[in-house]
Amino acid sequence: MEKLKKYISVKDEDHFYHQGAAELLIFNFLLILTILTIWLFKNHRFRFLHETGGAMLYGLVMGLIIRYVTKSPDVESGTIYECEKLKSGPSTLLINITNQVYEYQYKREISHHNVNGHQGNAMLQKMTFDPSIFFNILLPPIIFHAGYSLKKRHFFRNLGSILTYAFLGTAISCIVIGLIMYGFVKAMVHIGQLKQWEFHFTDCLFFGSLMSATDPVTVLAIFHELNVDTDLYTLLFGESVLNDAVAIVLTHSISIYSPKENPNAFDAAAFFQSVGNFLGIFAGSFAMGSSYAVVTALISFMHLTKFTKLCEFPMLETGLFFLLSWSAFLSAEAAGLTGIVAVLFCGVTQAHYTYNNLSPDSKMRTKQLFEFMNFLAENVIFCYMGLALFTFQNHIFNPLFIFGALVAVFVARASNIYPLSFLLNLGRKQKIPRNFQHMMMFSGLRGAIAFALAIRDTASQPKQMMFTTALLIVFFTVWVLGGGTTPMLTWLQIRVGVDPDEDLKAKAASQSASNLDKNTTKAESAWLFRIWYGFDHKYLKPLLTHAGPPLTSTLPEWCNPVARLLTSPSAYGDQLKDGDTDYIINNDELTENFESSAHMHVPAQGSTGSIQATGKEDIKEGDLGLGGYKLQLQHTAGQPQNLLA
Amino acid sequence: MEKLKKYISVKDEDHFYHQGAAELLIFNFLLILTILTIWLFKNHRFRFLHETGGAMLYGLVMGLIIRYVTKSPDVESGTIYECEKLKSGPSTLLINITNQVYEYQYKREISHHNVNGHQGNAMLQKMTFDPSIFFNILLPPIIFHAGYSLKKRHFFRNLGSILTYAFLGTAISCIVIGLIMYGFVKAMVHIGQLKQWEFHFTDCLFFGSLMSATDPVTVLAIFHELNVDTDLYTLLFGESVLNDAVAIVLTHSISIYSPKENPNAFDAAAFFQSVGNFLGIFAGSFAMGSSYAVVTALISFMHLTKFTKLCEFPMLETGLFFLLSWSAFLSAEAAGLTGIVAVLFCGVTQAHYTYNNLSPDSKMRTKQLFEFMNFLAENVIFCYMGLALFTFQNHIFNPLFIFGALVAVFVARASNIYPLSFLLNLGRKQKIPRNFQHMMMFSGLRGAIAFALAIRDTASQPKQMMFTTALLIVFFTVWVLGGGTTPMLTWLQIRVGVDPDEDLKAKAASQSASNLDKNTTKAESAWLFRIWYGFDHKYLKPLLTHAGPPLTSTLPEWCNPVARLLTSPSAYGDQLKDGDTDYIINNDELTENFESSAHMHVPAQGSTGSIQATGKEDIKEGDLGLGGYKLQLQHTAGQPQNLLA
Repeated sequence: MEKLKKYISVKDEDHFYHQGAAELLIFNFLLILTILTIWLFKNHRFRFLHETGGAMLYGLVMGLIIRYVTKSPDVESGTIYECEKLKSGPSTLLINITNQVYEYQYKREISHHNVNGHQGNAMLQKMTFDPSIFFNILLPPIIFHAGYSLKKRHFFRNLGSILTYAFLGTAISCIVIGLIMYGFVKAMVHIGQLKQWEFHFTDCLFFGSLMSATDPVTVLAIFHELNVDTDLYTLLFGESVLNDAVAIVLTHSISIYSPKENPNAFDAAAFFQSVGNFLGIFAGSFAMGSSYAVVTALISFMHLTKFTKLCEFPMLETGLFFLLSWSAFLSAEAAGLTGIVAVLFCGVTQAHYTYNNLSPDSKMRTKQLFEFMNFLAENVIFCYMGLALFTFQNHIFNPLFIFGALVAVFVARASNIYPLSFLLNLGRKQKIPRNFQHMMMFSGLRGAIAFALAIRDTASQPKQMMFTTALLIVFFTVWVLGGGTTPMLTWLQIRVGVDPDEDLKAKAASQSASNLDKNTTKAESAWLFRIWYGFDHKYLKPLLTHAGPPLTSTLPEWCNPVARLLTSPSAYGDQLKDGDTDYIINNDELTENFESSAHMHVPAQGSTGSIQATGKEDIKEGDLGLGGYKLQLQHTAGQPQNLLA
Repeated sequence: MEKLKKYISVKDEDHFYHQGAAELLIFNFLLILTILTIWLFKNHRFRFLHETGGAMLYGLVMGLIIRYVTKSPDVESGTIYECEKLKSGPSTLLINITNQVYEYQYKREISHHNVNGHQGNAMLQKMTFDPSIFFNILLPPIIFHAGYSLKKRHFFRNLGSILTYAFLGTAISCIVIGLIMYGFVKAMVHIGQLKQWEFHFTDCLFFGSLMSATDPVTVLAIFHELNVDTDLYTLLFGESVLNDAVAIVLTHSISIYSPKENPNAFDAAAFFQSVGNFLGIFAGSFAMGSSYAVVTALISFMHLTKFTKLCEFPMLETGLFFLLSWSAFLSAEAAGLTGIVAVLFCGVTQAHYTYNNLSPDSKMRTKQLFEFMNFLAENVIFCYMGLALFTFQNHIFNPLFIFGALVAVFVARASNIYPLSFLLNLGRKQKIPRNFQHMMMFSGLRGAIAFALAIRDTASQPKQMMFTTALLIVFFTVWVLGGGTTPMLTWLQIRVGVDPDEDLKAKAASQSASNLDKNTTKAESAWLFRIWYGFDHKYLKPLLTHAGPPLTSTLPEWCNPVARLLTSPSAYGDQLKDGDTDYIINNDELTENFESSAHMHVPAQGSTGSIQATGKEDIKEGDLGLGGYKLQLQHTAGQPQNLLA
């Protein structure tokens, strides 16, 4: 008898495994369909539905099928059991059921009004996965990839504008959405559609902050494909990358904001605490991410020079790189900071320093690995968003609220882009033209981050209404705005088919022609940044990478013994290498592969990887106005071609 | 009040996230340490501790620290709550605690005697992760990689022997261990160390089957590094790969075996049902895995020819390849078969067909991706094994049982290798020498599979004792036998520094010199395999890949219209390409990279990837005795060098 029972329990467990397999299989199936569709679209140069839109569509259809075709086998799950002995929910619960002890793990808290949803379909419940999966598994590779593939040269040219849009713009967007939604909520209460207590102003601000995370992945993919004007691309890309970080921390700060008495009244202390929280978390996460990247850079640097030969094992190098970057995320989370922000700045710093130290093989491996993880994670998220419309069981559709949110999102985008562009144009030498502003306005898509932030907390009714609304706005913007990108580009007469490097050169030339004083060109970059760049170029790069001038020439003379110790021997000869960090950029165009198949009797041509990237050095240095090294670099810039010819 | 409560619950949830991050961080930290150590060892050519042994050591130390340094914050988790209303454990449980509903998820069943363990450390509990993670996430990449990187040419030369060792050998090993353990258990009962009812013969057999999964990853890594005799390498590698599949299915079949009455008595019906189960599951999984691979091959084939240009998007190709291979695993699991077996044969078939159809870029990407996943998964498992010794809370150390198991494992390995080698040598032209047999005997390490099978079920006391014993045997074999590999090779005077291709050529030459009759060389491969190979070469390869002779020349004449339709246009010109599948093999040596950096002005040398592999074609065809195509291939074999010179 006992024996039999044991077998049954083993089979039960097997059943659980197989269930999990079936759900994953559904995702796999959706992803395979998406890939086949993308490939078909790419082949026919069909740009009205991007891969993310396609993934969402397939998810939607699958959700519909799961919802209305599968049946509910698990009736018991709707019942609530009383447990008087417990005071709070422990993380694991041991329960004695007919003389067998079962272990249960805490999943989440449920509001009373949601309990009915649980009587429904067990399959639906299983398809709705834990929000922590988004934050801990799916988002990090996407964000890291964004940081790692930042077009640094163009990014830094527009740093001031990008920071303005990202910080100030996101704050404006958050407040505008919050205010409009609060107005709508008040109006809805007035006409009796909502109960007063349900929505506080902080809830509206919370919604505003999560809806401020823009994700123009569709737009950027099309921009990339069509080679749209580089400045526009950089402004949008830079804004969206930093904006995610800002929105995440902002949402967190607002959710912590708890005024002591009346939640509707303004509490200055609590407000400043929230602002302090925001700054503290942001700065902490930034520091955490960067320092992991610096550690990685140091390890890879040491390995390459002092002890040598980590580069002989590209697998180990790639593994180390991957693990340390992930650790940046995990450490930030474990320390109560924001992992996503840490991993973003880790990516940026890795690209800036560590990438230089990697062997050619590892450069390619890491790039492809992160590209692949980004691709998978992105499509999983969009599939899941499609699924969620039908599988999530506690949707609250409120047409007025949704309409209000749609209006709010557009008004907020407009009051972010136009006023800030006006202000920026006062300071910029090279103005942001009207059509760029319209395009940026149009590219305010909402995507993965907004969704992830909304799904993180769906316990209360207001939060559920927000989640439903956020989901629908994501659908709307991805399909309508994403699909309209190409027509919009034509309509706004924005240049396409621009070679980024040529473009930059031309702009720099036209500028230096119009004003002979070099310093005005420099003024475009913020002074703070110029100081930082100088410091970075003179001290950090030589310390952490094999690029840049040797420390012996940048440090004061009395430091020479130390400087000589710390400088890589290759730095003396390879000063021209400094530029290759910029070339991580062109994900598709530039696949740096190197012949190293020793067994194949092929002469190893082009195996001296880092030399390749130096050909265009003159442009960058010219821009940044670091005249001290410019001349030297221009002298050597012609060499690589000779080497490889 | 309600507000405050909500915030507290949000913070609680955050706490859960951060907990998860801390645990993952520990694993990351262990892996980083392991990588740095491996790199140090590789640099100093230190072979006494392999990376897996190192990972295990670090895990052990970390487990010790967690166990004795961290404290138990969660007192409540040891209490059992009664729930009279429930009849069985539902998958989710809603519990009302002080007017808040919490959702709990089913984790596992616990025996009453284990409940005390739960009063312990919450950290320990969290470090002990779900066994399904092993089977669904960590094992598949390892097994797939093994299949994908099988040295096919050498494998097929020794197919008969490998199958004998894998199927017959594993069965022998299982039965021998089962019998010896049963004897020991009886003896222990006799001297009063065990209670009679605890161990049935089926339990002993279960232990035998899980301990029969050999995992000589350490040995093979050293073999690979030292270029040990290829036949020995192939025999061991082939045996261990297939043996895993056999052991997994065998364990499953035995756990299902449930005689109706006395569990100690032999029940013929139940026995034959188990044998039927074994065969059914094995065949089903094989079919599932292969058919997914065939589908992948067909898609990639169609894309390359008819619609063209999937190869222009290596990311999509890689994604499709990855997802379809994983789907093979998940489908098998969802269908109640064994995913691991499916994914193994999927890997073998993918390497055989699909690999030929991939673009050069995708070939490299898939290879590196799977290599990387394999590397990470392997090290995670070994770290975890180290950890488990201290973090698993229900160990039952029984010195007599452990001693018995150690004896049983060695006796079983001996009664697998020596008698079977003797039998095989009767049929083999090229005998398996004595020193090879000793080396194979010595290489019977236990690793990831044995551990994963043992941890899958640790509910009852016998199972816990088995788990503890299995873990200790893994430690012993990995450290002692793994560390002793290099001295053993020297002691047994086994050749090292062998070039696999030269070796094969030399052996073939010496054989054809000794017996001029070509047919005796053929006889080495099983006749069944020869038929299969002919069929594969004539029909399947031309259908599924661009290699092999055109179908028009292999199909009867009346099929010509169909054949012409199905044959890839490139097949006519590229018959000599057939061999490149064999070159997936040399993971480290042969990194097939291709210059495609359009921006870099480097002439794209060596970009005609598949030509590389043809230089050694003559050997393989000669071996397999497919004389019909041999001549033709030998004619062209000299060309590649000219092309690339």
